[in-house]
Amino acid sequence: MISPIIFIFSLLLSSCHAAVQDFCVADFTAPESPAGSACKKAATVTADDFVFSGLGIAGNTSNLIKAAVTSAFAAQFPALNGLGISLARLDLALDGVVPFHTHPGGSEILIVEKGTICAGFVSSANTVYFEQLVKGDIMVFPQGLLHFQVNSGRIPAVAYASFSSASPGLQITDYVLFANDLPTELVAATTFLDITQIKKLKGVLGGTG
Amino acid sequence: MISPIIFIFSLLLSSCHAAVQDFCVADFTAPESPAGSACKKAATVTADDFVFSGLGIAGNTSNLIKAAVTSAFAAQFPALNGLGISLARLDLALDGVVPFHTHPGGSEILIVEKGTICAGFVSSANTVYFEQLVKGDIMVFPQGLLHFQVNSGRIPAVAYASFSSASPGLQITDYVLFANDLPTELVAATTFLDITQIKKLKGVLGGTG
Amino acid sequence: MISPIIFIFSLLLSSCHAAVQDFCVADFTAPESPAGSACKKAATVTADDFVFSGLGIAGNTSNLIKAAVTSAFAAQFPALNGLGISLARLDLALDGVVPFHTHPGGSEILIVEKGTICAGFVSSANTVYFEQLVKGDIMVFPQGLLHFQVNSGRIPAVAYASFSSASPGLQITDYVLFANDLPTELVAATTFLDITQIKKLKGVLGGTG
Amino acid sequence: MISPIIFIFSLLLSSCHAAVQDFCVADFTAPESPAGSACKKAATVTADDFVFSGLGIAGNTSNLIKAAVTSAFAAQFPALNGLGISLARLDLALDGVVPFHTHPGGSEILIVEKGTICAGFVSSANTVYFEQLVKGDIMVFPQGLLHFQVNSGRIPAVAYASFSSASPGLQITDYVLFANDLPTELVAATTFLDITQIKKLKGVLGGTG
Amino acid sequence: MISPIIFIFSLLLSSCHAAVQDFCVADFTAPESPAGSACKKAATVTADDFVFSGLGIAGNTSNLIKAAVTSAFAAQFPALNGLGISLARLDLALDGVVPFHTHPGGSEILIVEKGTICAGFVSSANTVYFEQLVKGDIMVFPQGLLHFQVNSGRIPAVAYASFSSASPGLQITDYVLFANDLPTELVAATTFLDITQIKKLKGVLGGTG
Amino acid sequence: MISPIIFIFSLLLSSCHAAVQDFCVADFTAPESPAGSACKKAATVTADDFVFSGLGIAGNTSNLIKAAVTSAFAAQFPALNGLGISLARLDLALDGVVPFHTHPGGSEILIVEKGTICAGFVSSANTVYFEQLVKGDIMVFPQGLLHFQVNSGRIPAVAYASFSSASPGLQITDYVLFANDLPTELVAATTFLDITQIKKLKGVLGGTG
Repeated sequence: MISPIIFIFSLLLSSCHAAVQDFCVADFTAPESPAGSACKKAATVTADDFVFSGLGIAGNTSNLIKAAVTSAFAAQFPALNGLGISLARLDLALDGVVPFHTHPGGSEILIVEKGTICAGFVSSANTVYFEQLVKGDIMVFPQGLLHFQVNSGRIPAVAYASFSSASPGLQITDYVLFANDLPTELVAATTFLDITQIKKLKGVLGGTG
Repeated sequence: MISPIIFIFSLLLSSCHAAVQDFCVADFTAPESPAGSACKKAATVTADDFVFSGLGIAGNTSNLIKAAVTSAFAAQFPALNGLGISLARLDLALDGVVPFHTHPGGSEILIVEKGTICAGFVSSANTVYFEQLVKGDIMVFPQGLLHFQVNSGRIPAVAYASFSSASPGLQITDYVLFANDLPTELVAATTFLDITQIKKLKGVLGGTG
Repeated sequence: MISPIIFIFSLLLSSCHAAVQDFCVADFTAPESPAGSACKKAATVTADDFVFSGLGIAGNTSNLIKAAVTSAFAAQFPALNGLGISLARLDLALDGVVPFHTHPGGSEILIVEKGTICAGFVSSANTVYFEQLVKGDIMVFPQGLLHFQVNSGRIPAVAYASFSSASPGLQITDYVLFANDLPTELVAATTFLDITQIKKLKGVLGGTG
Repeated sequence: MISPIIFIFSLLLSSCHAAVQDFCVADFTAPESPAGSACKKAATVTADDFVFSGLGIAGNTSNLIKAAVTSAFAAQFPALNGLGISLARLDLALDGVVPFHTHPGGSEILIVEKGTICAGFVSSANTVYFEQLVKGDIMVFPQGLLHFQVNSGRIPAVAYASFSSASPGLQITDYVLFANDLPTELVAATTFLDITQIKKLKGVLGGTG
Repeated sequence: MISPIIFIFSLLLSSCHAAVQDFCVADFTAPESPAGSACKKAATVTADDFVFSGLGIAGNTSNLIKAAVTSAFAAQFPALNGLGISLARLDLALDGVVPFHTHPGGSEILIVEKGTICAGFVSSANTVYFEQLVKGDIMVFPQGLLHFQVNSGRIPAVAYASFSSASPGLQITDYVLFANDLPTELVAATTFLDITQIKKLKGVLGGTG
Repeated sequence: MISPIIFIFSLLLSSCHAAVQDFCVADFTAPESPAGSACKKAATVTADDFVFSGLGIAGNTSNLIKAAVTSAFAAQFPALNGLGISLARLDLALDGVVPFHTHPGGSEILIVEKGTICAGFVSSANTVYFEQLVKGDIMVFPQGLLHFQVNSGRIPAVAYASFSSASPGLQITDYVLFANDLPTELVAATTFLDITQIKKLKGVLGGTG
């Protein structure tokens, strides 16, 4: 009496044992596609693949900007591959700043866990939206728009950012302009910044050219 | 006079002979990506790849639930890979039942070919929608929602289900709760079912733990 | 003791009673968007909205091509709006034909319910794929490609087609060329057909110009 | 000398002041579409629209399951409309449980802020994946799959869940089976649970029929 | 003999006369949705709706940056609504520059029609990619990344840009930093630029605060 | 004092050096997926990969239809892989014609660079939309619909077409019907064209069968 039911359930599910894409834990050894990394064989995936422990520890904010971002994107947490979601932890020491940046691949929600953060973004219509956020507040930064976070309180701040992409990317404006080998003249021509200003920040951020 | 036209048509189409993704017949020997399986080389694809003959035969319903589902998902019919569509055949003997289940990856349309079926689903707002369906009736089950089909007539019933995904997946609630190694205490804690009820169904469905 | 649980469940679901898009039954009286029609208020949706009964009856094939297509697209079955799936019934009398056509918005799977159908499509690389299909056979036609179905048996044939779009569209080549007001000279210039051939078919299909 | 630059920048951006969809803050008074709610006029949107303060306060866990979920989905936080992301706060008192449930519309990442949580999910292949999570651990639950969270520690637990959808939906299995008007016989037929078990839980959860 | 064919064709297409979304010409008077603007009634759409004549005329480059961008986005060319594509014309006088900017919503291909353009972009990994482009060269700028174009030749340059979105947006870094009311201190904190530099460019670009 | 900032920026970006999908330059030696070709290793990608020079030269129009299409699809310009955009150049000599065709995978915008072009398309509702286009005019052809372009002026015409897909495909109706091995009887049955007409065009276009 028991086996028939087992039979039917096996039968109902027989078609699902191959190629069901519930998930696609990234295998970085195989070629990527535009949709993300290749999938690890399902048979080798374990519960551990779905858990990531890197965000429990404060990032090191002993630096000039007094800030640290610790990411759990697909590159760090391969189970996110193809699922359209990722997380990061933000630590802002006193006066800490995450400078103007974009995530080319996704929108962001920030939730403040500790402290006070002044966060904002600028729209395509060049309207500025910024607010003071306290513990429990969340703010959303629509995809691809320049935004920033500044510790505006008197204690270190901690926040979590989640993204609508497993690999949202991160492009910090200062880094684009002053921390690579883009020729100074080209930076000047395409930003209208003074050459002395560019050279000063290239000196600080390690840019050449 | 003829060759020039041939020339131009060849020219017009020269760009299309490589990498045009009209279709991507699955090659299960190469790694998958989040978008589906790798593609068989187009040169080796034949008309036979686009035809599947498995749904012409009634499934075996000689089991307790008196039902059988025969799938033509991408796993069985590789030409569906990447095309966002699949089919299944449903056979319900007298008193046959497809228990509560979801398809995590897609919506479903059911068309009744023979007999009478009572089918329904429950929405996120916990509203119940169910109806008696007769030959020629179709019902739609929106993506990811729990639904069921029961033979409510006096003859065997046959239906076809189509899905908005090449690999819609299938998750039968009973199977999740009673047919694997999820510890009985955890099932009890997360369902409020009585331990005796859980053990009884685990006995029937082969669950351990 | 009972009310607390009710309380928590109400609480767990309180956020879901508004704006959850399990489904979006079309309301054709409000403006459409690129994603489909506007949604009927969820409160007015009933189980009947999810059931459509138009495909149980054979279409009228008393015409020259001896064929009929009966559609359950979002326009006929508003519950499909936004769900990315639809169905149609195909009746082919003896010698019935569905002429070359495309569905601009989706891929198609055809399942033969009765009779024998010769069906095929042509790829972007201009390779022809066609087969004889019998009861229970299914064939897939990838999105946007020209395809046809012909009754190649000795009895009337019936098939169901499902689509990976709620509004796949239908563009019959003959209809485009010979059944509207596109000037004959323009048809000739863009098809290389003879003027006499064009005029003959315009006469049959009602084209002007 | 200054005005020309202003001129060019105005010119460069003149095309962007209308219909740029950086964001689409929901206006619940206009009809929804399958892609989400209608957009509030951009001119009336302020920074406040992008901030939500509901997640800073613990939910009320004085109930049998000793748990509370507080959502910031598009229904509560209209700025999320169309951005493909949302958040929720989870409070689990001692022995608190979020019973088996799915989110039909999206994948979830859970980050533990306080305490210890046993969380898990079951795949379409009916494999069980569960782990003990401590502060800072994150776990991902792929779209549409049944999953649960249980406080497995000795203090209250708090976690944040983010979703790859602005309206992920929430379907709790017990609620579907025991908290609406689905007839008891139909529940029995589609779950194989005993009638007495069903009636007991319907009594607790308020189900009728 | 003729009418039956007409009959069948009418029948074949009867399902298509309503709600087929071949196109969705924007009606800016109705509310937008996250998928774009509402659709003009198909019956009122004419061939003129699908043609736009604004890109035939050179933009006015009599300004400091000696450049002009003329857009045919959905806001200017409503027929593009929902079709995922748009165009713009770029005029660069001698020494003309399109400063660093992003398109939050889409990738761009630039084709040079006249002159010589130095164009480049910076990736998320902070690698710089730039090249000299001459007539007929095309360059692609992946979605959301900072990029620029500079006339590097001795004659005025003209180029066309196409985008993978009907409303790609445009966010010019200088404009974000120096042409709105974002407080100077906040600009300084989030860019590390000197206050004097910021004030100088705010003076030029019209920024306040 | 300098190194700490460098440190933090390195830290902020450390997560981005692997698996960030800013772009996916096609590697045609690895298997394709439904989302496109595999990605070349980012470390081997150079600025040259993002530039394509094939569209600067007029196509050879010394043929009967007096037209040439030169494509920059992903197959020719691998950097487009996954970016949802592509380009083509159209040369039409006097009386040149691009016959009726579809792009199964994307919408098209045409911009006239030189001369006068009569271009048009037919909708699913069988409405004809066509116009005379002069230099600077653009016209959009929605996805999957039959359309054509004819030189209607007294000088050679040049136009650029951009597509909302990296591999839009190209299916020319005449080529489908008359330039492959589809049996003449099947062409006749599925188009209602006369056998003599079919054989004549098969002769011209190289069709067999």
